[in-house]
Amino acid sequence: MASEIVNPRSDLADEEPGLDPAFALHRGGKMAVQATVPVRDRDDLSLAYTPGVARVCAAIAERPELVHEYTWKSQVVAVVTDGSAVLGLGDIGPEASLPVMEGKAILFKQFGGVDAVPVALDCRDTDEIVETVARLAPSFGGINLEDISAPRCFEIERKLRERLDIPVFHDDQHGTAVVTLAALRNAATLTGRKLGELRVVISGAGAAGVAIAKILLGAGAGDVVVCDRKGVVSADRGDLTEVKREIAGLTNRDGRSGSLASALEGADVFVGVSGGTVPEPAVARMAPGAFVFAMANPDPEIHPDVAARYASVVATGRSDYPNQINNVLAFPGIFAGALRVRALKITEGMKLAAAEALAAVVEDELAPDRVIPSPFDPRVAPAVAEAVASQARAEGVTP
Amino acid sequence: MASEIVNPRSDLADEEPGLDPAFALHRGGKMAVQATVPVRDRDDLSLAYTPGVARVCAAIAERPELVHEYTWKSQVVAVVTDGSAVLGLGDIGPEASLPVMEGKAILFKQFGGVDAVPVALDCRDTDEIVETVARLAPSFGGINLEDISAPRCFEIERKLRERLDIPVFHDDQHGTAVVTLAALRNAATLTGRKLGELRVVISGAGAAGVAIAKILLGAGAGDVVVCDRKGVVSADRGDLTEVKREIAGLTNRDGRSGSLASALEGADVFVGVSGGTVPEPAVARMAPGAFVFAMANPDPEIHPDVAARYASVVATGRSDYPNQINNVLAFPGIFAGALRVRALKITEGMKLAAAEALAAVVEDELAPDRVIPSPFDPRVAPAVAEAVASQARAEGVTP
Repeated sequence: MASEIVNPRSDLADEEPGLDPAFALHRGGKMAVQATVPVRDRDDLSLAYTPGVARVCAAIAERPELVHEYTWKSQVVAVVTDGSAVLGLGDIGPEASLPVMEGKAILFKQFGGVDAVPVALDCRDTDEIVETVARLAPSFGGINLEDISAPRCFEIERKLRERLDIPVFHDDQHGTAVVTLAALRNAATLTGRKLGELRVVISGAGAAGVAIAKILLGAGAGDVVVCDRKGVVSADRGDLTEVKREIAGLTNRDGRSGSLASALEGADVFVGVSGGTVPEPAVARMAPGAFVFAMANPDPEIHPDVAARYASVVATGRSDYPNQINNVLAFPGIFAGALRVRALKITEGMKLAAAEALAAVVEDELAPDRVIPSPFDPRVAPAVAEAVASQARAEGVTP
Repeated sequence: MASEIVNPRSDLADEEPGLDPAFALHRGGKMAVQATVPVRDRDDLSLAYTPGVARVCAAIAERPELVHEYTWKSQVVAVVTDGSAVLGLGDIGPEASLPVMEGKAILFKQFGGVDAVPVALDCRDTDEIVETVARLAPSFGGINLEDISAPRCFEIERKLRERLDIPVFHDDQHGTAVVTLAALRNAATLTGRKLGELRVVISGAGAAGVAIAKILLGAGAGDVVVCDRKGVVSADRGDLTEVKREIAGLTNRDGRSGSLASALEGADVFVGVSGGTVPEPAVARMAPGAFVFAMANPDPEIHPDVAARYASVVATGRSDYPNQINNVLAFPGIFAGALRVRALKITEGMKLAAAEALAAVVEDELAPDRVIPSPFDPRVAPAVAEAVASQARAEGVTP
């Protein structure tokens, strides 16, 4: 109809051959809205808009639960950020974070069939972010928090979970945690060990490190030791944030203190979400047959080829090495499952179920270079969604 | 990829044949998000997401204006409401308003090629709405305010216009005003009169009535008299809101007071945006060859067949009579034009230019039943967009 209107997306041609292909691809953005019903003539308009739409609005006003049936609310997720902790770039602000949020949105669609909308907020105060997201919530079926710096991200998620009756999920925490647990579970199965026998050392006490520690403990890991830049997060330290104090109480059963390298001595698992580096001798002193998940991007804490000299299973965050720990294995299916049953929240049980289902996708194909499916494995999102939906029903966190 | 995931939209079949077709059409909502770039394999992912996306984010952090080139910001509009004044239904709240906001969003796309996202807010305080929308603004290229009750809508729009550097446009005011002016201009041309000769009586002093009064005066109408439920809005009344006091100062050059019926005696134009009724004798006493725009929906203030006994041109808001005054003739093209040149605001001049362009679409086809194009006339949105973009450039309200 409006074909003469220039769409900035239409000039995606190779007109700037010297340009970085990432810029060429991003020109005009990566997403669009489409109508799923026709608006060709007066009859269409009288159903999709006035006067027909008024009958649908009146019905929802009368019976609020109908909003899930007659609008897109229950299939659309807000991808919310304040731009304070974007990828490895840090605090670049809301506008500059938009390409990541659009990327996330199209991954939601591509992998989970879930519609998603970038919402980059121009505010930083924790309570202001909570209040703003709560005011937006009527339009959305779920809230995916993204790239919000620690420790603010913990409080924002907690308050929103208390306040809203739709799923609120900070992907940097829980997406990473779910995929890490799935990989660890399969690595243990492959090497004939149980989670309860494993001592895990996590490097990084930010959003991902904290969430990984909690999910591994919830899944029954033998012990977990979390290290930040100053070394082991232990109860005797006087410099801990509230969240780190909580972690110190939950982890480190043997009361260790000292450096990451000392914590790694004899450890069974290294999980790196720090961006730091781990020297080869420290990896060499881990227990025989250790697992090394060096997930910092783009530079793993230790090069996977070096790690492989000592470890029985090596995983990274990179797509050019085997066993890529990639959140896209989790969040699309988790939200698809939660939205399908209109879950009121995403519980620990639902995250554990997601990790189980994700691990199970490759349980018959396990190998040292295959403890986690490829991000493009089409079995993943449906399996995760089904497990999450079933668990939500079983726990009764549905309407 | 995730084809096994059930999309609630896929069961749009005729499985409930007895159902109102409006409900059948609305099942699962009316819109979706789509990726405009491929995400088929690791190479795609490495450009659209990490690591490639980080280079684009870093470039925007360095040069903020690049957000318009490399994200969808400049082609997406937030359709913002609090659900306080929805269609003829009134205050039905944010969730129940969503079908209208989705309808608006798909009309933006269909007619203007503009992406739009429903944002129904769970808050009512004027300053809270302003603050919330301002925090959201980094993600959007424009803000379309919708179905927010008067007089709050005036203050919200004014404050947001002052605060933001993207177009903020309350469609219930200005969309209606632009289309009304276009129809009036053509009616005048058709009957050989000038706007400056016409005395216009507007029934309704809400969002639409106030905006119509202002745009008609801005376009040079001879005189405008606005009536609310108590009669003429005149400076001697002690019960006026701030906005009505302003209107009383701008209009009613002859200092009339009294009823709508008395104001209509000898008037050249009736514009109804009230939802009330006008008795036939009052129309009969208008000036010979009057114009009657009875735009209340679904029941015009006076039936168009009755109005036609006295008036030379009759318009309504209904699709089943000629000369439908429909906002869809304005907002898609206005935003398409404003976004194209990244206008910082939508000025009075841009609205007047939109009305001129809209009127011009049918200037060679004018007839009493054709003073305004059909909502489905494909010439409309491109013409309006071009006029709005040119005017924005001419006024220098572009970056």
